[in-house]
Order: sequence, then structure tokens, then C-alpha cells
Amino acid sequence: METTQIRLARRPVGAPDAGTFATVTETLPAVGDGEVLLAVRYLSLDPYMRGRLSDAPSYADPLEVGDVIVGGTVAEVLESRFDGLAVGDQVLSYLGWQTHAVVPGTAARRLDPDAGPVSTALGVLGMPGFTAYAGLLQIGRPQPGETVVVAAATGPVGSAVGQIAKLKGARAVGIAGGPDKVRALTEEFGFDVGVDHRADDFRERLADAVPDGIDVYFENVGGAVFGAVRKHLNLYARIPVCGLVSGYNDTEPPGGPDRMPGLMRQVLTKSLTIRGFIQGEFVPGHYRDFLRDMSGWVRDGSVRYREDVTDGLDNAPEAFAGMLRGANFGKVLVKVS
Amino acid sequence: METTQIRLARRPVGAPDAGTFATVTETLPAVGDGEVLLAVRYLSLDPYMRGRLSDAPSYADPLEVGDVIVGGTVAEVLESRFDGLAVGDQVLSYLGWQTHAVVPGTAARRLDPDAGPVSTALGVLGMPGFTAYAGLLQIGRPQPGETVVVAAATGPVGSAVGQIAKLKGARAVGIAGGPDKVRALTEEFGFDVGVDHRADDFRERLADAVPDGIDVYFENVGGAVFGAVRKHLNLYARIPVCGLVSGYNDTEPPGGPDRMPGLMRQVLTKSLTIRGFIQGEFVPGHYRDFLRDMSGWVRDGSVRYREDVTDGLDNAPEAFAGMLRGANFGKVLVKVS
Repeated sequence: METTQIRLARRPVGAPDAGTFATVTETLPAVGDGEVLLAVRYLSLDPYMRGRLSDAPSYADPLEVGDVIVGGTVAEVLESRFDGLAVGDQVLSYLGWQTHAVVPGTAARRLDPDAGPVSTALGVLGMPGFTAYAGLLQIGRPQPGETVVVAAATGPVGSAVGQIAKLKGARAVGIAGGPDKVRALTEEFGFDVGVDHRADDFRERLADAVPDGIDVYFENVGGAVFGAVRKHLNLYARIPVCGLVSGYNDTEPPGGPDRMPGLMRQVLTKSLTIRGFIQGEFVPGHYRDFLRDMSGWVRDGSVRYREDVTDGLDNAPEAFAGMLRGANFGKVLVKVS
Repeated sequence: METTQIRLARRPVGAPDAGTFATVTETLPAVGDGEVLLAVRYLSLDPYMRGRLSDAPSYADPLEVGDVIVGGTVAEVLESRFDGLAVGDQVLSYLGWQTHAVVPGTAARRLDPDAGPVSTALGVLGMPGFTAYAGLLQIGRPQPGETVVVAAATGPVGSAVGQIAKLKGARAVGIAGGPDKVRALTEEFGFDVGVDHRADDFRERLADAVPDGIDVYFENVGGAVFGAVRKHLNLYARIPVCGLVSGYNDTEPPGGPDRMPGLMRQVLTKSLTIRGFIQGEFVPGHYRDFLRDMSGWVRDGSVRYREDVTDGLDNAPEAFAGMLRGANFGKVLVKVS
């Protein structure tokens, strides 16, 4: 059996391009005792992957040139020498950008096919959904009547943040790029207001959308949106920071003025909490609650989700680059086979 | 009876100077029912006062031109028509920069003269001590073996932060300006290491002082010290922010590069917590514990303090300006009469 892999060919400077990736075909080893042969059905594309392509210090070690690009996957068991998995089982695994792999059976978690579409294990019922759930509830802690703002709000994290905020009795304001996404915020995801960060009058519209200020800003984009949002932060506002995708392709520090002293002054005068997190921190304490709560909310329709599926592993690089500039609409998946 | 008052004559641009203040003498009204006549013994000078001189938005309303400058005071009761206070009692009050005042008896809290020098009610057993206690224990939460760093470390907040950190089993690193202060950090206050931020090799010495990185940075100065400290912050480090005195006289935003995106990236990759606070937030929940703990620690010698006393209300403006540039050595008090 062969696997087609996409590997890191050259670290990108700025946005990833054709030269960043290389496609190779490898012959897989035979399935050993305790192992399974998996065929990837869906590959998840997520902003954090951009960080792994660079060698700047971050929360995870960078990929080396020549490594297969990492990524969460839903796969089907083609052959099993592991007691807990049978041929035909759908599993959650972390195989990265490739079509097939032989891995220990312990590295795959069987998915319940009755729980809903298996692709949701990579989105609303997976890492992005949990990022929203843990960050909003453990750090943001929205109270009834408070205002929660999130950007990239039609994405898998942002849309879950807004909908969970509503379930907790808060007012939800979503920021997204372009009229179609903004419309979906209120019509599809139940936000109270959607604001278009690409509009010329973005700052005015944002001000109108938060007449009582902002109590929780769930930060997953950074950049100009944060600059506009921070003017409206209330006393004791909380800012969970799970991503800064707008700057992931930046190659040099932006020019002046230096806004850091002003931010720190605001932290002081408004008693702000800014708290970075990676979802893994909260897995031991909260993942079971998440699966129970979120499965229920998805089942009863109180949390909706949208997927943006690209066909074929060959198209993953282009879909990935598009996601980094906000061209996607919903959770980005690649249908591999 | 007359009172001599120092009032705000003109909002300072940059550092306060002679034109900022005006001294006036007023005749006090007669002592009414329920009121007391107080003579100020000690006036506390604190960095927060600088904010009140400006009209930039902050956590407290600014003074108006013509207002008496605010400030905590220890005073003696000269005349009383209030049941709970007698002539000769020493009280904690908030009379500001003046020699005498007539106030409701409810606006003065009687001090126990056996509890120690009354001036400590403005320092280690007062607002600065509580700022250290609440910020360190409620936000910083140092664990045994962790490294706590604080600047302005011979000041009333910083010296208490370091000593409480030691009592909790943490390693304490103090930053101060000049060799005398740095020596006092280890010899007088029991820090593990003192580092001189005025030394040419400050950054190297700081690096040597925190071989295991920094778990808690108690932020009360900002500026260049924060720039150096942040390079050493560990995963999950906590940064209680109670002051940014190095920037209080700044008149315009500093030039580039813009360090805000880099700070936010660090918040994300290190899962940092940055939390501003004003001590009043924690008074309801923690002030009683503070008085019990801190009185005990001061009594048994495990927390020491230093006072920097200036004689005469006339000299308050100069002492205040000196404090803002770090010329003081310990808690700044003005002995008024």
C-alpha cells in the first residue's frame, strides 16, 4: 500500500506558496501487531499549522523541512491487527497531510457513527469546538446580559463562541469579512449583531453594535480588529487569546507608534484580564463536559456549524493559504478519499 | 482654626513642577454634630496620584483644577463631636495634602497605637501592603519553588511582594535602581537576588538572576524593565499589573516598532495571564485576612519595611516628583505636623 504525502519543502517567508510544499509518494510498511492501516477521509486545516511551518519559538516545536505537515484527520480502518478496531471503523487520528498511514491502534479513537457526521469530530465536536467551549467558559466566563465579541465569527471557533455565549444568556456580536458571512452570523448562527471588518465604516458599526461596551473579547485574529475592539472594553473585561491568525504571515514587526504601553495602561485602568491558552490545557478537566454539552447542543439545534470542504489532498495547500487570508466560510476540511 | 492646603493649580504636562501646585490657607468651619477636627500627622505620597492630576480616562475621576490634592493620611483628633472618637486618638483618613480638616467622624478609622507605628497604616499595613498582598496571592498565586520578580522592589509594594513571595516558598528577585537599594533587597528584605536596572548590563544580570525563568512578574513600573522581563516569562506565567509608574509622566506614545502584536503573540504561545487590578476590588474578600496576616508578619519580623519621610507639607511637591523618578527609598511619607 502506498501513501501520498504533502511535506514541508521550504519554510515560507510570509504567506505559504507553491514552493512551501512538496508531494511525495511512499510505500507503507506492513501492518504490525497492534497496528492499523488507515485511509484518510477528512483532513482538518487549522490556523495553528502556520506556526508549525516556521521555526520561531512557539508553544509547539516547529516542523523540520521534509516532515509531513501535521493535522487532525478522520480516517477509515482498512486493516487491523489491533483488538479495539475493526475494518470499516471511522476513527479520529492525527495523521497529517497524507492519504494513508500505518499507526498503533492506540493512536486512533473510534468515532460513534450515530453521533452525527464524522467530520464534526474535526470541527464543532473536536478541537475547534473545544477551544471555543473551554476558552469562553473557563476564561471568558460570560454572565447573563454581558456582551461577548468574537472575530472570524463564521469560523469553527468563532461560530461556537457566539452560540455558546447566547446559551449562557449573553449578547453575542460577531465580526466577519464580507456581507455573506455577516448575514450568516445573525441568520444562521443566532448572533445578535454581525459587523463587517472589511467595511469602510467598520469602527462606527462596531461602536453601534456594543452600546454597553464589551465584557468578553474572544481573541482569535489580532491585528486591526483588536485595535478597534479594545477601545470598547469594559471594566473587568476578559480576553481569552487562542489565536492571532491575521499576523501569522507577518515577516517583520509593524512600525510605530508602539502600542504596548497603551495596552498595558488599559489593562491597569480597566482591570482587564488577558489570558492566552491552548486548548490542551483544559482537556483533562473539561473535555468530557464538552462532549456531553456540545453533542447535546448540536443534536437539539442550539449550536449550528458550517463546513467548507475542498476536494482532494492536492488542493490542501491552496485551501490552507485561503484560510489564512479569511477566504473560507466555516470549518476548513479537505476530503481526501 | 486654619488649614494649609496644596491644590492643583495647573495640570502637569510631563513631570509635575512648581506651577502644578498652589498653596492656600483656609479657615475651617466649626466642628458640627458628629464631626471631628483632625490635624494631619502623616501624608502618604503614592504613584496613583499622578493619574489624578491628568484628565486622561482612568479608573478614578481626575481632580479638577483648584481641588486639594488627594491622599491617605494619619491624623490626630483635636476636637470631637463624634461618639466613637476622642481627643488624642490617632486615625486613618483620606484628607489629602493639607494640615487640618473637619470631617464626619465616620470618615476616620481609629488606629490601635499598640499595633505599631501609626505611619504603617499608610504603608505596609495599609493600601500599598494590601496591593502587594492581594495582587500577589489572588492573581500571581506563586507556588513553592516558582520565581517571582518585582520592580521598584524597595518601595512599599515591591518590598512586600518579595517578602510575601518568600513566605510562600517562592524564589524572589527584586529590581531596583542603584547599588544601595539593590544591596537592601537581599540584606534588608530577604530577596534571593537584587538586580540594578540602571546598570549597563541590566539585561544580562536579570538573565542570570532567573535561571529557571519567571513565573510571576508583579508589574508596578512598566517601561524598559517590562521589556527586559518579558523575555524570561515561563509558560503559564502570571502578571498582576497594579501600576506603570515609569510612564506616568509620558506625554506622547513612544515610537516604533509596535510591540503590541509581539506581546499578544507571547500571551498566546506562553499561555500568559496579564491582569490589571486596583486593590479596592479585593477589599471585601481579603482585607481582614490581610490585616491578620500582615500584622503578624510585621510583628514577628518576617516582613520588614522602610519609610522615606520628608518633613513639612511644603516639601510634598518635591518629594512627589522625586518618587515618580524613583529617588525615594521606601514608602514615601510627609510628616505634616
